Amino acid sequence: MNSTEEHMSRIENSPRIAIYGLGAMGLEILRILHGRGANIVAGIVRPGSDKDGQDLGRLAGVAGLAFPARGDAEQALREAAPDMVVVTVSTYLDDVQYEIFSTVVKSGANVITLAEEMLYPFATDNPRARDLDALAKRHQVTVTGTGHQDAYWVNLISVLAGSSHDLGSVTGRLSWNVDDFGPALAEQQRVNATAEEFAEWQTAAERPPTFTYYSLYALAAAIGLTPHGTVETTTEPVIALGDTHSAALGATVPQGRLLGYTDTDILHTAEGVTLSISSQGTVYGEGERDYNEWHLADASGAPTLHLRNSDLNTAHTTCATLINRIPDVIDARPGIVTVDQLPQLRYRSAHRSV
Amino acid sequence: MNSTEEHMSRIENSPRIAIYGLGAMGLEILRILHGRGANIVAGIVRPGSDKDGQDLGRLAGVAGLAFPARGDAEQALREAAPDMVVVTVSTYLDDVQYEIFSTVVKSGANVITLAEEMLYPFATDNPRARDLDALAKRHQVTVTGTGHQDAYWVNLISVLAGSSHDLGSVTGRLSWNVDDFGPALAEQQRVNATAEEFAEWQTAAERPPTFTYYSLYALAAAIGLTPHGTVETTTEPVIALGDTHSAALGATVPQGRLLGYTDTDILHTAEGVTLSISSQGTVYGEGERDYNEWHLADASGAPTLHLRNSDLNTAHTTCATLINRIPDVIDARPGIVTVDQLPQLRYRSAHRSV
Repeated sequence: MNSTEEHMSRIENSPRIAIYGLGAMGLEILRILHGRGANIVAGIVRPGSDKDGQDLGRLAGVAGLAFPARGDAEQALREAAPDMVVVTVSTYLDDVQYEIFSTVVKSGANVITLAEEMLYPFATDNPRARDLDALAKRHQVTVTGTGHQDAYWVNLISVLAGSSHDLGSVTGRLSWNVDDFGPALAEQQRVNATAEEFAEWQTAAERPPTFTYYSLYALAAAIGLTPHGTVETTTEPVIALGDTHSAALGATVPQGRLLGYTDTDILHTAEGVTLSISSQGTVYGEGERDYNEWHLADASGAPTLHLRNSDLNTAHTTCATLINRIPDVIDARPGIVTVDQLPQLRYRSAHRSV
Repeated sequence: MNSTEEHMSRIENSPRIAIYGLGAMGLEILRILHGRGANIVAGIVRPGSDKDGQDLGRLAGVAGLAFPARGDAEQALREAAPDMVVVTVSTYLDDVQYEIFSTVVKSGANVITLAEEMLYPFATDNPRARDLDALAKRHQVTVTGTGHQDAYWVNLISVLAGSSHDLGSVTGRLSWNVDDFGPALAEQQRVNATAEEFAEWQTAAERPPTFTYYSLYALAAAIGLTPHGTVETTTEPVIALGDTHSAALGATVPQGRLLGYTDTDILHTAEGVTLSISSQGTVYGEGERDYNEWHLADASGAPTLHLRNSDLNTAHTTCATLINRIPDVIDARPGIVTVDQLPQLRYRSAHRSV
């Protein structure tokens, strides 16, 4: 074993991990990693946020992490020298997110993130993706976006398609409960709007790409298909069939008003296979649960394969998938590496085998 | 590109394929490959079988394969010089199957097979597996077992487990219809036996490992778990709750008699994760359909993840998975390579991208 291999082996056995962003997901990842005996070396927050300077263990509700969350990212990274930084800050690769990633990359650490756009940042011609890729290569580190979608919208579905020989379409439907989030998301999903208000909003709104937008490009890459054109998104309101209480809103949505809406993304491919994903975000009625459901059909349109995941706990799968991906990202080539290029996602036992 | 790379590139673009075994699965694979424009160079059958010498295209019901099925395997392989031989003859790595594989391997061709034991031939200490591995390495070819189980009992499940962080158990249940097969299988599943006859048979019978036995070892390997002990199998009768017609038997099974039985295999692992798979083979009543269902639970036993594939067409998934694996097996290192060591299963488009 030469010194580089020795260094890699040390990293793989116990990488030095920092968490950048200590919201619900960041703290949950921190708790799980700490419970697995991971080597947590820093927690980083926005400078001046109310968590800046607070005890990391207290924030996460665990014993034994008695050091403060840091608002001074650059200095904290220099002092802690993490091998891997988990970034759970926001969705899009905008200027703020770019600044965060580039600070981490320049410190010489790898990045693993839940930012949805990072699942396939080359989907749009976002110049920040090219710049970040070049920067990561220069600093010999890897940047990867993962999370729930890595498993449930990309790689499970690609394996499923691998049991098909004449693919025509791949159609995903997923459902999430607005009430699992807060009033901001209820507002964003137009809960309680009238059909007229929704139509007006739809005409006027300049919406960013959906959370699912990037996953169709990652899915195409995983399946080995070539996008033909770009993702088209359509949006349909979901109307309350009866009065429905919304916890997020703290009010009852009367019959006839919006419980939320469904976004449908469609991507055509040069091979003639159509990929689509519909994401329904609504206030749930009695007995409704999250699901992830995919139908495959052959080139004639006849249904062939069907997969359904019920009773999903998306917070659990998001955090677990990210944690299981850490060794893959450490081993990956430098640059932005999307999940279709990583080895097959798999479980990582925290227990040593005997 | 050096000459080896050139040779590999030619093979990957259009490998010369032979089919060894022209039963239902072999002929279906032949039809699909031919429909995709694959380069079929030979069809091989048992010498003296009623298909020996028959026109391959006529046997498969396709135009343009006007050469005879061959009973003289060695000479046929020498003349046709396939890169890859699809072997669909039988389940176990017994002396007959070993002879077939070694004939192919000695001819310098790779082997891809549906033989269930080949999914993980190192599961038992079958000395033929070690011999075949050595022989394949000597001849610089790869031998791999795949099929429906590659996707539905191994790799989909391993990806699913990759979205979990504290795995305790992985439990599969699958159901298949005796009436989809023939009277021989109905007899083997003890259809129409009384409970007493079944109990007697169970005491006396020397049964070979179940079809699912090998998949638990492949699943453990794919998940990264270490088997602790060997697979234990238990068998439970399934009793008719009402009179049920069996097409395979050509008779009605009266209430109280056996519709079939369920085999349950369990494998414990050093990491404390229990893997199990229950396979129910019965005569179906009204509305019953094949399914493949998996439940994951955490170390405390609490359910975490659930996946269900409904309305499965196992013949379709078996053939398609094998076909999609051909490039992986051509690219793999020499020797017996099990599916947990191959790249992630994926769809292979027969259409060129534009």
